[in-house]
Amino acid sequence: MTEAREEFTLPSLMPHSLSAPLLNGDRAALARAITLAESARPDHRAQAEALLAELLPSTGHSIRLGITGVPGVGKSTFIETFGLHAIEQGKKVAVLAIDPSSARTGGSIMGDKTRMPRLSMHERAFIRPSPTAGSLGGVARRTREAMLLAEAAGYDFIIVETVGVGQSETEVAEMVDMFILLLLPGSGDELQGIKKGIVELADLAVVTKADGELAAQAKRVRADYSAALRILTASSAAWQPKVLTASALEGKGIAEIYRAVEDYLAAHAAENGISRRRAAQAVSWMWKEIRESLQERFLAHEGVRASLAAMEEAVSSGRVTPAEGAKALLGKFLG
Amino acid sequence: MTEAREEFTLPSLMPHSLSAPLLNGDRAALARAITLAESARPDHRAQAEALLAELLPSTGHSIRLGITGVPGVGKSTFIETFGLHAIEQGKKVAVLAIDPSSARTGGSIMGDKTRMPRLSMHERAFIRPSPTAGSLGGVARRTREAMLLAEAAGYDFIIVETVGVGQSETEVAEMVDMFILLLLPGSGDELQGIKKGIVELADLAVVTKADGELAAQAKRVRADYSAALRILTASSAAWQPKVLTASALEGKGIAEIYRAVEDYLAAHAAENGISRRRAAQAVSWMWKEIRESLQERFLAHEGVRASLAAMEEAVSSGRVTPAEGAKALLGKFLG
Repeated sequence: MTEAREEFTLPSLMPHSLSAPLLNGDRAALARAITLAESARPDHRAQAEALLAELLPSTGHSIRLGITGVPGVGKSTFIETFGLHAIEQGKKVAVLAIDPSSARTGGSIMGDKTRMPRLSMHERAFIRPSPTAGSLGGVARRTREAMLLAEAAGYDFIIVETVGVGQSETEVAEMVDMFILLLLPGSGDELQGIKKGIVELADLAVVTKADGELAAQAKRVRADYSAALRILTASSAAWQPKVLTASALEGKGIAEIYRAVEDYLAAHAAENGISRRRAAQAVSWMWKEIRESLQERFLAHEGVRASLAAMEEAVSSGRVTPAEGAKALLGKFLG
Repeated sequence: MTEAREEFTLPSLMPHSLSAPLLNGDRAALARAITLAESARPDHRAQAEALLAELLPSTGHSIRLGITGVPGVGKSTFIETFGLHAIEQGKKVAVLAIDPSSARTGGSIMGDKTRMPRLSMHERAFIRPSPTAGSLGGVARRTREAMLLAEAAGYDFIIVETVGVGQSETEVAEMVDMFILLLLPGSGDELQGIKKGIVELADLAVVTKADGELAAQAKRVRADYSAALRILTASSAAWQPKVLTASALEGKGIAEIYRAVEDYLAAHAAENGISRRRAAQAVSWMWKEIRESLQERFLAHEGVRASLAAMEEAVSSGRVTPAEGAKALLGKFLG
């Protein structure tokens, strides 16, 4: 379905016709450029790469935020409120939502613009869902490219949103300057539903819905996570992750969170921290692409495909050691 | 140096002459088999694989424990005391110490048997340092193989020890049934020196040196980490990680820790949890070996080596996108 839609809307989108309006901040041009970058068609891929190469010198000037949280935590409300606050400070805000549902159903649980009605209608905002369909590693690549395109279009904040239950959080944390985790105002013992390994990625955590009956619980969650993050990030240096609370209902907390983002950036400005983080991210992203391409080739090999399932079963049941299994499959691949 | 030593001691170690005494519990045969598995020589490698294939049906009956903690936490003392307690319960104990220092210096900070004088002298114990020298992923492979060999030799507990500051902890956690983290009795705010991502791997944490003046602090660390582990592992199921305290000086805590290990195993027995964990570990180990072999091939390619440094610099400085960099290098590799 995605393919069909792309073929329908993309035939005349040559990169040279997109770059000028995109650099000028034209939202329609940005939307079309992202569609081009998301396409699986090789000719679109080549065009997207040409466009990115052309725009690359105009990227890198935005603040890249990753925001995650489980369904029900109030991500849309938070991002809308945060985004509108940033706009009040004179900024332009792009939201890229990584949407796991659209991959299978063609529909979307979070990409829908009606999720953030006030933000999506604002002329200084751009909201875009990214389907996760496609090949291995495709999400990260497409999201990174969409991020660069939005930067070239002059957005000051690029917010990359994920649902906090999938595989994409680590990848997102590796492409942003700051990673923000939203927490439910349930007590520390309750299941937040956050996957292992996500909490420690957080540079900032925000307990949402900190109002009314939930205010006291939110305070407890804040204290619990503050303690946990102190333990988890004991070995890091420039920045000690904070936990804050927010209430969309009462309009509280957003200014404080915005300041925490500024503080974070200031703390990293001293030793050129953000630039160094981005340089390291870029190299590690290149390696990730290389590894994934090698693995794709391996998986596409006929001999490997013919014996893979049986070999996995043999290794899984302990009849063959993993090393032997790997050697046998590699033997087929390398011929 | 390692190579020279292997060549000196290994010439006549044919696998068929090792398997019978090894299965009979002969410690010298086990030691020689591990040396064979650790060798980088292709003929030794082939012999080690043949030996492992022969012994594979005799493996899998041990309890595999990973134990980690930063230098100074008292790992040797803990492992010796725990090991002797297990021996008192009628068990046989093998300790495989992953030793990062021996890779570079040829020496060893932790492999030395004098670290655990009472345990190393016991006939029901086997202690072996594993140097981390060698190729990508070599540590994990050699340690896993040493683990299987020790299992075939009839050891009930295989303890894999790491220093808790390197890369090997995640790999070790992925090859054991239970991962134990030792903690210093300093307060939660102090730097424990544990790397990011290690704490959440723990199925059990033990605060050491919980005696005398440090007893109160140890209690506080226990409470802090209990709270943190509750948060971190909220999404897991069968087992809630515990934090206990131990004092080697006062001989306290070891029996309780031993019972916690038994409880852990009992909790996972219900749904065949350990077997399923091992099956998943084996398949993921196979994939790890495949990925690493593919990457080794890539790195060994002449064209890749010639342009790698320049490309990393170009990507790092933002002149080339990671995707372009990956594509260019892959182009050289695939010709």
